[in-house]
Amino acid sequence: MTKNLTKNIPKVVIIGGGFGGLYTAQDLKNAPVEVTLIDKRNFHLFQPLLYQVATGVLSPADIASPLRLVLRQHKNTKVLLDEVTDIDPDSKQVLLKGHEPIPYDILVVATGVSHHYFGNDQWSTIAPGLKTIEDALEIRRRIFIAFEAAEKESDPVKRQAWLTFVIIGGGPTGVELAGAIAEIAHSAMKGDFRSIDTSQAKILLIEGLDRLLPPYPPELSAKAERDLTELGVTVQTQAMVTDINDHIVTVKQGEQLKQIASRTILWAAGVKASNLGQILAQHTGCECDRVGRVLVETDLSIPGYPDVFVIGDLANFPHQGDKPLPGVAPVAMQEGGYVAKLIQKRLKGETLPPFHYKDFGSLAVIGQNKAVVNLGFAQFSGFLAWVLWVWAHIYYLIEFDNKLIVMLQWGWNYFTQGRGARLITGEGARISEPEILLEEPKTVTSVTH
Amino acid sequence: MTKNLTKNIPKVVIIGGGFGGLYTAQDLKNAPVEVTLIDKRNFHLFQPLLYQVATGVLSPADIASPLRLVLRQHKNTKVLLDEVTDIDPDSKQVLLKGHEPIPYDILVVATGVSHHYFGNDQWSTIAPGLKTIEDALEIRRRIFIAFEAAEKESDPVKRQAWLTFVIIGGGPTGVELAGAIAEIAHSAMKGDFRSIDTSQAKILLIEGLDRLLPPYPPELSAKAERDLTELGVTVQTQAMVTDINDHIVTVKQGEQLKQIASRTILWAAGVKASNLGQILAQHTGCECDRVGRVLVETDLSIPGYPDVFVIGDLANFPHQGDKPLPGVAPVAMQEGGYVAKLIQKRLKGETLPPFHYKDFGSLAVIGQNKAVVNLGFAQFSGFLAWVLWVWAHIYYLIEFDNKLIVMLQWGWNYFTQGRGARLITGEGARISEPEILLEEPKTVTSVTH
Repeated sequence: MTKNLTKNIPKVVIIGGGFGGLYTAQDLKNAPVEVTLIDKRNFHLFQPLLYQVATGVLSPADIASPLRLVLRQHKNTKVLLDEVTDIDPDSKQVLLKGHEPIPYDILVVATGVSHHYFGNDQWSTIAPGLKTIEDALEIRRRIFIAFEAAEKESDPVKRQAWLTFVIIGGGPTGVELAGAIAEIAHSAMKGDFRSIDTSQAKILLIEGLDRLLPPYPPELSAKAERDLTELGVTVQTQAMVTDINDHIVTVKQGEQLKQIASRTILWAAGVKASNLGQILAQHTGCECDRVGRVLVETDLSIPGYPDVFVIGDLANFPHQGDKPLPGVAPVAMQEGGYVAKLIQKRLKGETLPPFHYKDFGSLAVIGQNKAVVNLGFAQFSGFLAWVLWVWAHIYYLIEFDNKLIVMLQWGWNYFTQGRGARLITGEGARISEPEILLEEPKTVTSVTH
Repeated sequence: MTKNLTKNIPKVVIIGGGFGGLYTAQDLKNAPVEVTLIDKRNFHLFQPLLYQVATGVLSPADIASPLRLVLRQHKNTKVLLDEVTDIDPDSKQVLLKGHEPIPYDILVVATGVSHHYFGNDQWSTIAPGLKTIEDALEIRRRIFIAFEAAEKESDPVKRQAWLTFVIIGGGPTGVELAGAIAEIAHSAMKGDFRSIDTSQAKILLIEGLDRLLPPYPPELSAKAERDLTELGVTVQTQAMVTDINDHIVTVKQGEQLKQIASRTILWAAGVKASNLGQILAQHTGCECDRVGRVLVETDLSIPGYPDVFVIGDLANFPHQGDKPLPGVAPVAMQEGGYVAKLIQKRLKGETLPPFHYKDFGSLAVIGQNKAVVNLGFAQFSGFLAWVLWVWAHIYYLIEFDNKLIVMLQWGWNYFTQGRGARLITGEGARISEPEILLEEPKTVTSVTH
């Protein structure tokens, strides 16, 4: 079914409908090219708010936009729901699981990253990470079923294990999850139970380095830690997780080994690049970094292949500053915009200066009225930072529909402290024997894949 | 953990947090009783709008209210997330899967109904029904993946099977689903695809009796059929489904046998009562009807057990009119209110006249601006009926939060024809080989259980 509508129109194939891929496609709207956007999923996911789905504030549809809907007006663009199995840069085509190969003139690879358990993949079922809608719903299920199980548990030791939440990794996702779970326990669910006091819940945030939010200035890290502590989170820095087993997390802090009994362990510690990076490396000899990200040229192409671009979290762009650009949405968006512009310039026989990331600052939210902002020239925190965070996140939601719903939901929650989306759904949602809740391997593997 | 706070306070145990159970609990707010509400799920589901989740209009959280949140202010009420395995009416206790037995003084059983395949349970994986959130998400997945698969399919016969939707059962759910799928194909998704024309989709609604919406007056049935036909639905009445197999539906109409190739077959034809009806019958000798509903006394108790009440869809109340009361939300709500009132009267040594259902009319929606209303003294259809339907459904949503979101979502959709919640999620969401989509048994069984 891949017809060339017109033989001479250059074919741009984009793999991945995240921030990088979608922004590339959007900026090619009026370009004289034929665009094919390939994704495994039928929606773009606004990942910065995924933790709010995991903690019962928003619904999946609030932060997901159907790709076809977003690109409906792009008459030069075709969306294909499929999975890429291989890329052949010599014959210039992309191989798919459920479709004949798609030829390209220009290829943009933007398939991002997934969790990384540093060689301990067996941890993934006990300590799920947060990358997909399914991850978020599984984490939501675990958080809220933990309180239900605690309410029914008469043994105080087992009950405390249900009321102990361990979040591994003190980056933005870990900080956001820990803050949100603390708010659930200390305000949203207050008064909902009869046998337990949810404010007795322990929320532990474990970070291997010496402070939270390592990319931020130290003062903001300290402020984040203070705010989290106020919310009821116990922050442990310079703490390495050495084992996760049978709902026991073993943590090494200095010389000390400590065991923590917890029924809800969440992973926010590491990512590894999509395997398309390795596939490109095999075929083109391009270089990948430690986590599998592709080292790109100053124009985001790969060495020797000026028609193959890698952008977003999958790219390692080492040409600006002393570290690669961070794996955040604004970098992916700007890279997508750059590649779209470059493609159009090239078609006219023009050139473009090397890519340069404009850093407008970074934001992390800790809880209601609490956030930290680093604008480079200025750092601040507290209510104003939180308002800026709210505004920025609403602003960048792709669809107007979503903006309205999320604004309304947040406004409502602001005054009621409510968490209306705290539904326990999916497999295991009806399980009434807390003992086997997380120990039955089928339940766990089928939802974290 | 089941402490008797005060020995002399009567214990009311309610099984099921649907309309019947929840309304009973709510009306007992200020009664001098200790209430325990037991449900397998942690939320009340507004089932009349479930088809809107299945068709990508609303999100699960929009029509689900966490039971603990709804009953938070009810200091005499405890919510227990568990599954009832048995009822012992002689020792007056309820047995649970994951908790010690709960003693009761008064028992209210309100566990409703589930799908019924009339002895063809093997159909359940091919033709899922619509009762739970998981059912709705699975149906949503199937509807939207069908269009994606059709877009990729080059064989015209196979493509048409992907674009054929068969809905079995012409009651309110079948009518609503058929209308909504027609709207998806003919307006919501128009222009989203490049290879297929979604308006070529065939939507078949199959009913065994001689008209749609059998409980309504014949004029309204005729009007519903005309409206559906206008929307692009093919209505087949007096048509019996004799087989569902390998994505072929065999239909018998008169003497004719017809085979329809369809990849999306939905079941809206039959229900059977929760097995607690049978359990009660075994222990008390009470009578169940053909589909397992318990025949109740005029005060909704069961014969010989004045302290055991059965309400909602699980009850067969034969004392009013020539047919049992229909299995609809208003009946369950009024029965719940009656039982709550009766309990309070009895505590004061007073009595209450027999239950009498006040029928304020029935509504069924066909599509935007299209609905039928039967108020008993008057029947009407069209835009006004649709406005009444919208108003009634918003009004009865339990939480104010949900009312706001649903109103906003509907308002938005009204002007944009959008379906923002058309996400393909869950197991099988990433499958790119349409051929194996529904044939891999694991995928299907694990989502319809």
